[in-house]
Amino acid sequence: MENTIEAVRLANDAFYQAFENLDIQEMEGLWSKKDYIKCVHPGWEARLGWKEVRDSWVVIFNHTYGIKFEVDVLDITIHGEWGWALCVERISTQNEGKWVKGKVIGTNLFERQDGQWLLIHHHGSPQLMFEEKNLEDSPNGH
Amino acid sequence: MENTIEAVRLANDAFYQAFENLDIQEMEGLWSKKDYIKCVHPGWEARLGWKEVRDSWVVIFNHTYGIKFEVDVLDITIHGEWGWALCVERISTQNEGKWVKGKVIGTNLFERQDGQWLLIHHHGSPQLMFEEKNLEDSPNGH
Repeated sequence: MENTIEAVRLANDAFYQAFENLDIQEMEGLWSKKDYIKCVHPGWEARLGWKEVRDSWVVIFNHTYGIKFEVDVLDITIHGEWGWALCVERISTQNEGKWVKGKVIGTNLFERQDGQWLLIHHHGSPQLMFEEKNLEDSPNGH
Repeated sequence: MENTIEAVRLANDAFYQAFENLDIQEMEGLWSKKDYIKCVHPGWEARLGWKEVRDSWVVIFNHTYGIKFEVDVLDITIHGEWGWALCVERISTQNEGKWVKGKVIGTNLFERQDGQWLLIHHHGSPQLMFEEKNLEDSPNGH
């Protein structure tokens, strides 16, 4: 089980590395092409299937001038040929010459196919920066 | 397989019904208590384990005066004892006497334990309302 978790961790690392590299070929090699794969980028509509998922990465990579990730993997859980990782992504993006920081929570699902752990789902959403206390005071937190 | 998908769909429906009912006992009965369960509410930090997850629902229910869901289940995929649903949640919340609409994308993971499909993960994130075209023009879409 330790080895399996480590293998999923490496697949998860490779995902963020491909994102940092803004490299569509590298990203393509990390995803399953099964028809049930999905991707939710922060604020976007869900993308279903590889064609839509791939297009979303092309759009993001074409509009990103530089991006750096520091990723905390909160947990990895394995069930058979599926692995599930929850991550906090501390992101710096280059925007008009300045680096802007953001924080995203990422749910990543992997499936082992022919011995390789491939992404079947990524769901990224912004974590707001204000204090927990204020969050909990909000009447419409969900 | 059809019956299994239907069972996960019913568990998914029950989750949104418990949320609409703002009923913590009902919600409690729908979640696994395994130590790897997790919940990400829109904008919040991740909640890990039942104690933290339960607390988050208590906070939300205590601060919500009325909430209605229309849920489109985009897909349900089963792997052994795990089920994965992706949903678009069209939400109306009551705020100072007015109903406010919002749209959330929800990734829900279920695990079958003793024959019952229980939530092990919910990740909800706001879907922004502006046009796809504008989204894709954004330099920092992720």
